[in-house]
Amino acid sequence: MILELEQNTTPEQKEKLLERLQQMGFRTAVQEEGRITIVHGVDSTVKKELFTALPHVRSITPLSTTSKLVSKASKSGPTIIEVKGKKIGDGNLFIVAGPCSIETREQMEAAAKAAFESGAQALRGGAFKPRTSPYDFQGLGEEGLKILRETADRYGLLAVTEVMDASQIELAAKYADILQIGTRNMQNFSLLKELGKVKNPILLKRGFSATYQDLLMSAEYILSAGNPNVILCERGIRTFETHTRNTLDLNAIPALHEMTHLPVFADPSHGTGLRSLVAPMAKASVAAGADGIMLEIHPDPDKSYSDAQQTIGLEAFAKLVKQMKVIHEAMI
Amino acid sequence: MILELEQNTTPEQKEKLLERLQQMGFRTAVQEEGRITIVHGVDSTVKKELFTALPHVRSITPLSTTSKLVSKASKSGPTIIEVKGKKIGDGNLFIVAGPCSIETREQMEAAAKAAFESGAQALRGGAFKPRTSPYDFQGLGEEGLKILRETADRYGLLAVTEVMDASQIELAAKYADILQIGTRNMQNFSLLKELGKVKNPILLKRGFSATYQDLLMSAEYILSAGNPNVILCERGIRTFETHTRNTLDLNAIPALHEMTHLPVFADPSHGTGLRSLVAPMAKASVAAGADGIMLEIHPDPDKSYSDAQQTIGLEAFAKLVKQMKVIHEAMI
Amino acid sequence: MILELEQNTTPEQKEKLLERLQQMGFRTAVQEEGRITIVHGVDSTVKKELFTALPHVRSITPLSTTSKLVSKASKSGPTIIEVKGKKIGDGNLFIVAGPCSIETREQMEAAAKAAFESGAQALRGGAFKPRTSPYDFQGLGEEGLKILRETADRYGLLAVTEVMDASQIELAAKYADILQIGTRNMQNFSLLKELGKVKNPILLKRGFSATYQDLLMSAEYILSAGNPNVILCERGIRTFETHTRNTLDLNAIPALHEMTHLPVFADPSHGTGLRSLVAPMAKASVAAGADGIMLEIHPDPDKSYSDAQQTIGLEAFAKLVKQMKVIHEAMI
Amino acid sequence: MILELEQNTTPEQKEKLLERLQQMGFRTAVQEEGRITIVHGVDSTVKKELFTALPHVRSITPLSTTSKLVSKASKSGPTIIEVKGKKIGDGNLFIVAGPCSIETREQMEAAAKAAFESGAQALRGGAFKPRTSPYDFQGLGEEGLKILRETADRYGLLAVTEVMDASQIELAAKYADILQIGTRNMQNFSLLKELGKVKNPILLKRGFSATYQDLLMSAEYILSAGNPNVILCERGIRTFETHTRNTLDLNAIPALHEMTHLPVFADPSHGTGLRSLVAPMAKASVAAGADGIMLEIHPDPDKSYSDAQQTIGLEAFAKLVKQMKVIHEAMI
Repeated sequence: MILELEQNTTPEQKEKLLERLQQMGFRTAVQEEGRITIVHGVDSTVKKELFTALPHVRSITPLSTTSKLVSKASKSGPTIIEVKGKKIGDGNLFIVAGPCSIETREQMEAAAKAAFESGAQALRGGAFKPRTSPYDFQGLGEEGLKILRETADRYGLLAVTEVMDASQIELAAKYADILQIGTRNMQNFSLLKELGKVKNPILLKRGFSATYQDLLMSAEYILSAGNPNVILCERGIRTFETHTRNTLDLNAIPALHEMTHLPVFADPSHGTGLRSLVAPMAKASVAAGADGIMLEIHPDPDKSYSDAQQTIGLEAFAKLVKQMKVIHEAMI
Repeated sequence: MILELEQNTTPEQKEKLLERLQQMGFRTAVQEEGRITIVHGVDSTVKKELFTALPHVRSITPLSTTSKLVSKASKSGPTIIEVKGKKIGDGNLFIVAGPCSIETREQMEAAAKAAFESGAQALRGGAFKPRTSPYDFQGLGEEGLKILRETADRYGLLAVTEVMDASQIELAAKYADILQIGTRNMQNFSLLKELGKVKNPILLKRGFSATYQDLLMSAEYILSAGNPNVILCERGIRTFETHTRNTLDLNAIPALHEMTHLPVFADPSHGTGLRSLVAPMAKASVAAGADGIMLEIHPDPDKSYSDAQQTIGLEAFAKLVKQMKVIHEAMI
Repeated sequence: MILELEQNTTPEQKEKLLERLQQMGFRTAVQEEGRITIVHGVDSTVKKELFTALPHVRSITPLSTTSKLVSKASKSGPTIIEVKGKKIGDGNLFIVAGPCSIETREQMEAAAKAAFESGAQALRGGAFKPRTSPYDFQGLGEEGLKILRETADRYGLLAVTEVMDASQIELAAKYADILQIGTRNMQNFSLLKELGKVKNPILLKRGFSATYQDLLMSAEYILSAGNPNVILCERGIRTFETHTRNTLDLNAIPALHEMTHLPVFADPSHGTGLRSLVAPMAKASVAAGADGIMLEIHPDPDKSYSDAQQTIGLEAFAKLVKQMKVIHEAMI
Repeated sequence: MILELEQNTTPEQKEKLLERLQQMGFRTAVQEEGRITIVHGVDSTVKKELFTALPHVRSITPLSTTSKLVSKASKSGPTIIEVKGKKIGDGNLFIVAGPCSIETREQMEAAAKAAFESGAQALRGGAFKPRTSPYDFQGLGEEGLKILRETADRYGLLAVTEVMDASQIELAAKYADILQIGTRNMQNFSLLKELGKVKNPILLKRGFSATYQDLLMSAEYILSAGNPNVILCERGIRTFETHTRNTLDLNAIPALHEMTHLPVFADPSHGTGLRSLVAPMAKASVAAGADGIMLEIHPDPDKSYSDAQQTIGLEAFAKLVKQMKVIHEAMI
């Protein structure tokens, strides 16, 4: 339930109101001035009338949906995330590029240079790799994070890296600006709760078999634990089609924009699993209204330790960014 | 297996060669000058050497794929279909618009006018409706086809209509320029074979649970029965996601373009099932490289007899076409 | 809507009532004595009161579901189909066995002998094969049907064969007792309507991507067109799992039994696509409550023209039937 | 790669051999006497000949599959897990029953009594509940574990509980005999590695969108980290069918039995999500060859805090166990 406050409500009055609501046994959250969202204990059990009685409450909007803080109704306007002067969700196209795994300083240097020159805002790279097989390359750990941070800084890029476990959060948060949650951890609820306690924005990838509602509920875990800066990312779902590694579900982009105020990215690299499909699907993602695009790039794609067949080269990347920007402008 | 002929081969020599191949027990097809495709009896069983011995054969390419005539290898360059001076697959964006069902002359008149004015090339409308429930509106039949033909002609548009059964082909072919096969009939092999005998191009919609390979095999039925003019159409697949009616699989567009020389369309109306998602996904389809877009439009969408919730109004349609064209040009 | 008639209602009075209902503009159907189902024009539009006024109407039950004649509410007790003294849906286990395709008289003779000796009630065999590729074996046609009929008769078995197209119905109905509709034709509505006009029971296979509701709606097409004898058959659905050809969805058996009065079979041969899984899944199907089991058997499975890898040998079949019967008895 | 040792090899000789292999840079594992499995660094890179040169090596079997320790080839005969005198995978039917969440001492007492009396071997109950929504009941924690342990002991039952996070392992392992990993954590690789270090057997549930191969790879994580006692559990996959909560994929049971030596359970409660389908599908699971069945039971199902609609009552449970045992015996 959302309580719209009277405009002249003072901070003190608001505090008092929040205290009172807590005494009434409700969990509350404040996403913006003059608006209190009651996230728990209400809709079903308590009557709306109860709130009309409260001081300074101008209007009341019940939240039908189970996801409350992420729902569009709970916030006026989209969530715009700002990190070191770079904005996400403000209408510009945000590009995250880099290799799947951090391998060497040279590799990251080349990727960062290409990302910077083509106008990307962030550099990605994995230090702890979630691999389906226990016998595959598992990542460089902290050494990798250092390389990521240094190369990102050299080019004024934000650093994005994946966290697979609560124990990795502190370390990753120290080196990276944005923490990424992979498809296999989207419903790792213990991890999500911990991510609610950090300052870094969270890039939450859709589980490869998660519905839009599931994805929003996972984001709700993070918001309700205190971190409002979540970026949703469509990265392909598992279907009967085997020609592609995943089926990139671009319906998700406009659909999620209708359901939530959070920014929505697309990852055509994992969403297709095939290098030759990355460019057309990246362009399609922009046309579908994505706030940002994640791309796996590598100075020598075929030599990449992981995801080689879905990684594009640096020249192809530069060309693609140009085209994405043309499409993005064409749509304004 | 594909036999490339020597450039100076005469029609007579070619005929002789074809006869000889038939005597050898092979089924052959000629998709273009100087190139013979052997569609049956070979790859596994017969040795390549057998053909090198033949006169006028310059080179031989074995076809690994089970779909032969539709495969890219079997034809140099894309299939360009021309109907009454309008081209499909030549690099321009082909737009098919109209209501799901033909209901009244007024309705078709309004739809045709909007289609024409916004620059669409074809008018669609169903006269025989395949409905999941036997108690839903089943279409106007021949009366509807007449309305379709007349309104299309009045605006110089091509007429597209769906055929559900071999018994309807003759009638539909008489009134419509392009025959559409719906998702539920994509593997109705008896029907496909009959469609190989008509002159009209066939717009073959992907089964909602068909793989790319399945779709190509169904197209192969039509080509191998004598009709080379098949348009493939992605229209959404069935997945676990229930928020949308179907999951529009845009990976299919670049993927199919790699596999076949046939043109590939997208149908964002069925591919989403939600009016508000049609425009963004139509734009995404163009950006993904679709040769054409099918759209359900209606002068009064909410009053549409079928598919109301995925049908867009005429103004929204006009605006969308403008944007699709900008994106299409931006990509050249 | 279902009208329960007073017990002493005479046939004449019932006829009058039916006429009157037609004049009122309703489509009606009589599935059993003393009960009229109104299949069209009502639920939404007309008030219940309208019917209480009618003579001889004891009680009225509105049908919420879109599938009416197939719904459990519309009929007291299960549909029991009797053909030549053999019953389906009466609590006994009905076994249909035979090769995928009818190949030779010897092959059918051996299969029929094995089917008969192990206590199966019906012999299956395809004369018109629906093949994904146009270049695969397409069946023997009428010659095959003759072989099927003769071998079945020699062993007192019912004959089951698949119909792929309306044009085949007359021929197939002449030779076979039960007509089978394959997974790819489950929503071939033109075909379904034609099947409503024949006397033969219809074995309707679930589309590999059809929901239970879709399957029931397809059965409704047949019932509403006049043929009450439909057998539903779970044969595996298409999922992301590729180890098996299909995923046999046994949930469908108890679920459909709750939704409809029609008998429900299972086909573990197509449902797994792997010979070694056929026996355990056939037993599981019986334990799940299937009214019948369809099995692909062949005197020399590896030499089978089609579906070789999911076809079991005659000895394995005999052993399996014994086990299925033990399980079936164990459950009573 | 598997090295079969000569029968007269002494423990010392074996130790020496293992050391030498490590010096050669291989990761090895010993699953049973006289057989060494090399799990890493080989198949691709090293020649078979290298091993024939080693002392005491009788024969060498290369492992084609990526999952090594779980593969059938790597171990002679099935894995039989024994806990407090109770065996899993030895041919008997192992039954785990209990509520989804531990709620009160009374509730657990009633469930345990019913489980014991009907002949179940283990009591299940969740203390930390993974809930899709952050606002749902999240479990009693350690207090719940104490209740689980005490009630299980009172009836001589094993205790099974779910672990959602590495931080919970120590606590759960202290109170429960078997640790369960839920469907959403099946690919939480950090957690899997930690589970390799505990003594408790692990009941690993299949991810609702995981292939058999994915499931085996996750089990491989646990085995390769040192814990050989893993039980696989089919619990339903996500498909397009929405009538049931999940689609119980019983093909998985015989299929996994062909691929691995680990025991395979089935969970018809989650696999259907509908109370009325639990019994038939539990029986089907037994007929398909499951080594064990997991069931959600509750003294007052409708009052259950979670999964109410898929939980069965105690009488229904007692009746079901009787039938499952009859079927299980019928199959021997």
